[in-house]
Amino acid sequence: MVITVCVPSEQDVEALEVPAELLVWDGTGPPPDGIEQVEFLLAPYMGATFATESLTAMPALKVVQLLSAGVEPWLAKVPPGVTLCNGRGVHGSSTAELAVAGLLSLVRGLPRYARQQAEGQWQERRGGDLDGARVLLLGAGDINQRVAGALRALGADCVFVARTARDGVHGVDELPGLLPSARAVVLALPHTPETHQLVDAGFLAALPDGAVLVNVARGTIVDTAALLAELRAGRLSAFLDVTDPEPLPADHPLWGLPNVVITPHVGGGTTGWRERGMRLVAEQIRRYVSGQPLVNVITGDY
Amino acid sequence: MVITVCVPSEQDVEALEVPAELLVWDGTGPPPDGIEQVEFLLAPYMGATFATESLTAMPALKVVQLLSAGVEPWLAKVPPGVTLCNGRGVHGSSTAELAVAGLLSLVRGLPRYARQQAEGQWQERRGGDLDGARVLLLGAGDINQRVAGALRALGADCVFVARTARDGVHGVDELPGLLPSARAVVLALPHTPETHQLVDAGFLAALPDGAVLVNVARGTIVDTAALLAELRAGRLSAFLDVTDPEPLPADHPLWGLPNVVITPHVGGGTTGWRERGMRLVAEQIRRYVSGQPLVNVITGDY
Repeated sequence: MVITVCVPSEQDVEALEVPAELLVWDGTGPPPDGIEQVEFLLAPYMGATFATESLTAMPALKVVQLLSAGVEPWLAKVPPGVTLCNGRGVHGSSTAELAVAGLLSLVRGLPRYARQQAEGQWQERRGGDLDGARVLLLGAGDINQRVAGALRALGADCVFVARTARDGVHGVDELPGLLPSARAVVLALPHTPETHQLVDAGFLAALPDGAVLVNVARGTIVDTAALLAELRAGRLSAFLDVTDPEPLPADHPLWGLPNVVITPHVGGGTTGWRERGMRLVAEQIRRYVSGQPLVNVITGDY
Repeated sequence: MVITVCVPSEQDVEALEVPAELLVWDGTGPPPDGIEQVEFLLAPYMGATFATESLTAMPALKVVQLLSAGVEPWLAKVPPGVTLCNGRGVHGSSTAELAVAGLLSLVRGLPRYARQQAEGQWQERRGGDLDGARVLLLGAGDINQRVAGALRALGADCVFVARTARDGVHGVDELPGLLPSARAVVLALPHTPETHQLVDAGFLAALPDGAVLVNVARGTIVDTAALLAELRAGRLSAFLDVTDPEPLPADHPLWGLPNVVITPHVGGGTTGWRERGMRLVAEQIRRYVSGQPLVNVITGDY
């Protein structure tokens, strides 16, 4: 028996070679013929999402597969009996790569050397490195595990912090004791009510002079006004792939600071990401069709 | 018996706590009193070096300790019976860190995003990442071992190449078969007659479109004119911490290319480097005084 899968674009149809009937619908406009047969839904990545009403057009739905690691808007939306799976692992390597790129760029003064390059100026400016330095990793998932692997190879002393303490991971309640010795902090944790503006004025004030903040998670984990004050004072520097607000308006004061590097939320969004995402989706469909357990299950019992 | 050690600056005297008499001389100007007692010489790092005549002022000399990994100018200079030691390991982590910083910056388009940042422009430009990509590491020493550790944590497929093939390391003669699949090449190998302009027009032409060249070794390993031609064509990009000529003159065409990132030979020269260097020197002096074998011995039998 061939199952019916709903994907958001023609591009996905081309990328997926799976034993299934593929329908294209992104949840907007009238649903296509056969929508009532759909058992497996690949949700659109970022931007357009399915409204709850659009999901009711799929009474046979059993699985919703996301390509993002974050699941917030979907948790309340998936109907009872439907399994929700996320894109864990798909974005981990590229997001970790960007975090390492941004952190090392600031530690080694690449923005400053770029300004010298523009003037044809060969002049060393002595700075530090991460060998022997402590780096706090907030969030102990796939992304920061990879960041730790990369930084440890360069001699950094990586310390994990997550919601609850466990073997090899400190709890957030231990932050006051950890922040004063941190050369850098990398944020790769979900945005939740508990992590909303976790990085506030007190958090930042506890960091030593010259520390680097890296945010590849969500802009709202940081109190932007408090960060701006520290950056303007020149006491800290920051690599921000995510901001609050986002997108950052053209006249926002963060853009112009020499000690900030900003990228437009591109951590997970590489071309390599799409290939990894399609491999995950194909594997999940094969598992579903052959009755094997799915991976990356967030809610539901498939 | 207290031995006499010659160091190049007062700063070194302050940094070294060792069971020895310390004399300060950088090999220029008249030698200080007691120079004929010197058994252990810490050579100046970069710039000023000891002339062969200056070394003859030290008839009791047994050990020359360098802080650099490269030993070229010293090999012909150390008198018979004197042991030459290099600074292997002192610069490895910081040089590897800079190589990773430069490579990932180019892979993730940070220079391009910096130009957008200057205009307050939030606009994604989709690019690739190194997860699953092949990276050729030329040189299988401390620096590239660390680069491999960092990049493997991010999913890259790292392949070592060195003068002679051995377990886990390809020989340079295998380069023609390896270059066409390389997303990036990292140069961290000594400059020798064999590696002089190893990266020539043919080497570069064998790389696929979009490949990244990283040089943290010596500028003379690359044929600058051939690299310039590929960069001007926009086919490759490069991170260069070393150049030929060096320093790069202010009017050199390399400075102005958008697909090149240049730093002024700062791979090993961090503040952390100095601390690691002084730890090595102190340890070597302790070993010498107590009759233990020295580490990092290049020539000689101490």
